Amino acid sequence: MALNPQYEDIGKGFVQQYYAIFDDPENRANVVNFYSATDSFMTFEGHQIQGAPKILEKVQSLSFQKITRVITTVDSQPTFDGGVLINVLGRLQTDEDQPHAYIQTFVLKPVGVSFFVQHDIFRLALHDV
Amino acid sequence: MALNPQYEDIGKGFVQQYYAIFDDPENRANVVNFYSATDSFMTFEGHQIQGAPKILEKVQSLSFQKITRVITTVDSQPTFDGGVLINVLGRLQTDEDQPHAYIQTFVLKPVGVSFFVQHDIFRLALHDV
Repeated sequence: MALNPQYEDIGKGFVQQYYAIFDDPENRANVVNFYSATDSFMTFEGHQIQGAPKILEKVQSLSFQKITRVITTVDSQPTFDGGVLINVLGRLQTDEDQPHAYIQTFVLKPVGVSFFVQHDIFRLALHDV
Repeated sequence: MALNPQYEDIGKGFVQQYYAIFDDPENRANVVNFYSATDSFMTFEGHQIQGAPKILEKVQSLSFQKITRVITTVDSQPTFDGGVLINVLGRLQTDEDQPHAYIQTFVLKPVGVSFFVQHDIFRLALHDV
C-alpha cells in the first residue's frame, strides 16, 4: 500500500478526536472502539497489555475523573502500509493533582476506509533529577 | 512475518548502540548507516526529511560537539512486520547549554538478520508554560 499523503491531517484529527473522548469521564470507556480486539498493543507507564478487552479494563481502572490537557506538539509520519505514526507531547492535569508533561505515541493501521490504533505508548515525563 | 519476541532487548540494545555513535562527535556522522537511502523518515524538531543523504546533511549541520545524555525510560513494542517500535524519554545537554528533557521515537524495520530505522521523530520537551 502507498504512503497516505493526508498523514498530517489524519494525525492531528485523530489526536483531537481521541482526546475528546478520553477526556470526557462519561465517554472515556468508548476509546476502546479505536483498538482491535487482538492486534493492538498498549504500554501505559511501562505496563504492557494487548487487545481491546484488556485495554478497556485498563482505561476503566484509571481513578481520576477530570483531565485538563494542553497539546504542545503533534508530529506525524506516513507509514509504509498506508497508516500514520503520531507523536504527541503535551501536559495534563488529572483532578486536583500537579500538572505533568507527558508523551504519547500512536500507530494507526488502515482498515478499509478507516484506521485502528495498533500501537499506543504513554508516559508521564517524570525524570529523576 | 511474526512478532519478534526479542523486541525488548532489541529496543534497549539499539538505543544504546545508536546514542553511543551519535554522542561521539568524531563518530556522529556514522549514524547515517542506520537509515535507508530512500525509506527512512526523520522529523527533527518538526522539520521532516526523507532518506539517508538528507538525514546525514541534517546530522552534520548540528552545531554542538559534546552531548551529555541520561535515558529515563525506553518503551518498546513489537510491530507486526517483525520490527520494533521504540519510545525514548530522556534528558540531554549539548555543550554548555541548559539541560533539556527530550523524546525520541524510532521504528526499526527488519531487513535480513538486521534492522534499519524506518521512522525517527525527535523533540525537545519544551512547553509554553
